Amino acid sequence: MNGNVIVGQSGGPTSVINSSLAGVFKTAKDRGANKVYGMLHGIKGLLDKQYVDLSEKINSTMAIDLLKRTPSSFLGSCRYKLPEIAADKATYEKIFAILKELDIKYFFYIGGNDSMDTIKKLSDYAKMVNSDIKFMGVPKTIDNDLAVTDHTPGYGSAAKFIASTMKEIIRDGLVYDYPTITVVEIMGRNAGWLTAAAALAKSDDCEGVDLIYLPEKVFDVDHFMAKIRDLSKTGRSIVVAVSEGIKVADGRFVFELADHVEFVDAFGHKQMSGTAKFLSNKITAELGIKARCIELSTLQRCAAHMSSRTDITEAYNVGGAAVKAAFEGETGKVVVLKRVSDDPYMCITETADVGEIANIEKKIPLEWITDDDYVTNDLIHYIHPLIQAELSPIMVDGLPRHLNVNK
Amino acid sequence: MNGNVIVGQSGGPTSVINSSLAGVFKTAKDRGANKVYGMLHGIKGLLDKQYVDLSEKINSTMAIDLLKRTPSSFLGSCRYKLPEIAADKATYEKIFAILKELDIKYFFYIGGNDSMDTIKKLSDYAKMVNSDIKFMGVPKTIDNDLAVTDHTPGYGSAAKFIASTMKEIIRDGLVYDYPTITVVEIMGRNAGWLTAAAALAKSDDCEGVDLIYLPEKVFDVDHFMAKIRDLSKTGRSIVVAVSEGIKVADGRFVFELADHVEFVDAFGHKQMSGTAKFLSNKITAELGIKARCIELSTLQRCAAHMSSRTDITEAYNVGGAAVKAAFEGETGKVVVLKRVSDDPYMCITETADVGEIANIEKKIPLEWITDDDYVTNDLIHYIHPLIQAELSPIMVDGLPRHLNVNK
Repeated sequence: MNGNVIVGQSGGPTSVINSSLAGVFKTAKDRGANKVYGMLHGIKGLLDKQYVDLSEKINSTMAIDLLKRTPSSFLGSCRYKLPEIAADKATYEKIFAILKELDIKYFFYIGGNDSMDTIKKLSDYAKMVNSDIKFMGVPKTIDNDLAVTDHTPGYGSAAKFIASTMKEIIRDGLVYDYPTITVVEIMGRNAGWLTAAAALAKSDDCEGVDLIYLPEKVFDVDHFMAKIRDLSKTGRSIVVAVSEGIKVADGRFVFELADHVEFVDAFGHKQMSGTAKFLSNKITAELGIKARCIELSTLQRCAAHMSSRTDITEAYNVGGAAVKAAFEGETGKVVVLKRVSDDPYMCITETADVGEIANIEKKIPLEWITDDDYVTNDLIHYIHPLIQAELSPIMVDGLPRHLNVNK
Repeated sequence: MNGNVIVGQSGGPTSVINSSLAGVFKTAKDRGANKVYGMLHGIKGLLDKQYVDLSEKINSTMAIDLLKRTPSSFLGSCRYKLPEIAADKATYEKIFAILKELDIKYFFYIGGNDSMDTIKKLSDYAKMVNSDIKFMGVPKTIDNDLAVTDHTPGYGSAAKFIASTMKEIIRDGLVYDYPTITVVEIMGRNAGWLTAAAALAKSDDCEGVDLIYLPEKVFDVDHFMAKIRDLSKTGRSIVVAVSEGIKVADGRFVFELADHVEFVDAFGHKQMSGTAKFLSNKITAELGIKARCIELSTLQRCAAHMSSRTDITEAYNVGGAAVKAAFEGETGKVVVLKRVSDDPYMCITETADVGEIANIEKKIPLEWITDDDYVTNDLIHYIHPLIQAELSPIMVDGLPRHLNVNK
């Protein structure tokens, strides 16, 4: 084995992004890697020479099992886009100098479509300067919006949390003897994959949600209110799943329709929230029906205690497969998941050219969204295997134990 | 065994209120009860003769195990206060006529301090009219605000969900390389027990929350902002737990300080939410620090997938102990939990006069709240045993299975 390995995490965290880190680390070690470094806060940290020797952090089989169950990015994250090579060669020279200093031959980056842009640029630059360093992308995102891959690690666990929480919310909503409307806001700015997972709540023991609204389709407020009015005539309680990113015909987000929008943060970004609150307020004000809103918020991406074992295993596997491919000479690639069978569900890993994935957003096909504000069975069958099975949390003192980042 | 049994559920649901129902049902059956009826939607439903024969709903040992894991009130709930006896005898005559029709000799009501008022009035009336029906209260509430009892079933599971979710939120908040402030809003209008549970997140593998604000103490907005400013100077991310019910010195709720308060529902009730949003908006606007708010909302009372086994067992036991006491002739009582040992933790059941409990709210003693906006070790030690151990959810098709209410 010649040279060392470095791995980083980037973008929004997921419940299983650390399982991919475990997969990279363990596979690299098993295949004879000397040092495995971890960048702190991704490529941005690396530029400041912030890195650790991962063997000091992950120093037992117990640590690997804890790491798989630890939510959020163990190494820290960043949202940093590398400049175009032509515009700023100095940044690339700096990165490659640091990699040389550490004798890095294999570079792995765990992230979403923005992060894959980093792999693309670094592998392009390596080709330009005839560097033999291999650059591989490892996919992750709860949003499930990466192209080429059947689905993304991180999505299954978020979907499982959403579906199981939705079952509990539905039970809770039915408790009183008068009807209530519950509007649940789920993450997803442009793609509705997470919100669609609410459909999985429906089962032998659960009525399911009544309506599902995804950002792929224009949202019509009048149509929505008419639907709620009709459904409320049944006299039963109603639960609605809405994506935070739904928009009306003129392109505004639904939450922007509120009288007062204070959803701009210190950096001038619109904060994606308030959709459910706006709609539940409107129902109460105009229809006089008791309505409440629930934002699943950050819990969707960090509720590791309700992870899907399928997801944890696949997250680990894409990490391991990236190492295998790089060690065998591949570069400028991303590991993707390919569903080879639906029933029984089986998925294998392949590699795809990073250019096919970087900066591309995969949305729900419109034919998977029904005209009566729900999703098709095809979409449910697509998600269903991804939430299967569990990896029991390691409970210590009554709470799920994580691998301590700072020790 | 002479006569039949009836049981109802009332007030806000919890994750383990159905474990108490299982405890009443199973113990009554084991001790020779003939019929065990369930009121639908509590005493309000009973007044409309809405009840079921529970043996038809809970017809296997598997059903009992599912019921223990099913959140929300299996029988439905109500928020209905019986009139004063002197003011409206007709209502009592109607109830007792229905009970006679069903040959009820034992009446159990699972609820909080408002619901115990129902037991008080019914047992008072029984005494007045020389009825031999026994009336027993079974305590439940996530709020933990019942007098006499060491704690209430339902609290431990809510506390466990809050503490474990807080650990995940803390991990999530630390991921980027710039500091963020996260304000988490937790239930509790007048009592801070639930919010105090956030303190349990702190452990070997978790930094814990930085500040805790409870409704037992007046909230000072300027002091809070100064604290945040100071803490933000450390450069690290900060997590704050606030109760939805915190108030400023003039008696207004903090959420009422927002420019626009639309938190009045169709029934004219102030909706208890917006505290965290108000504070995080203020931090961003005045300090220019990225702040976000998270409302744990309904999940706190229905996240049965993260229940405490200690809590589920105690919930079952108070149900069973109520049956035992009633069958032995007690009436007008509530089963309470008495902590007989702290280390090792041991709790037994006793009965207390319902008059000592009905309509009384137990708050956190002020000496358990520190001057630096946190809670004492005494309070942590009080909560700690209540979140211990788990009862694994029965997972079917990737999701926690519940007992179907409608079958």
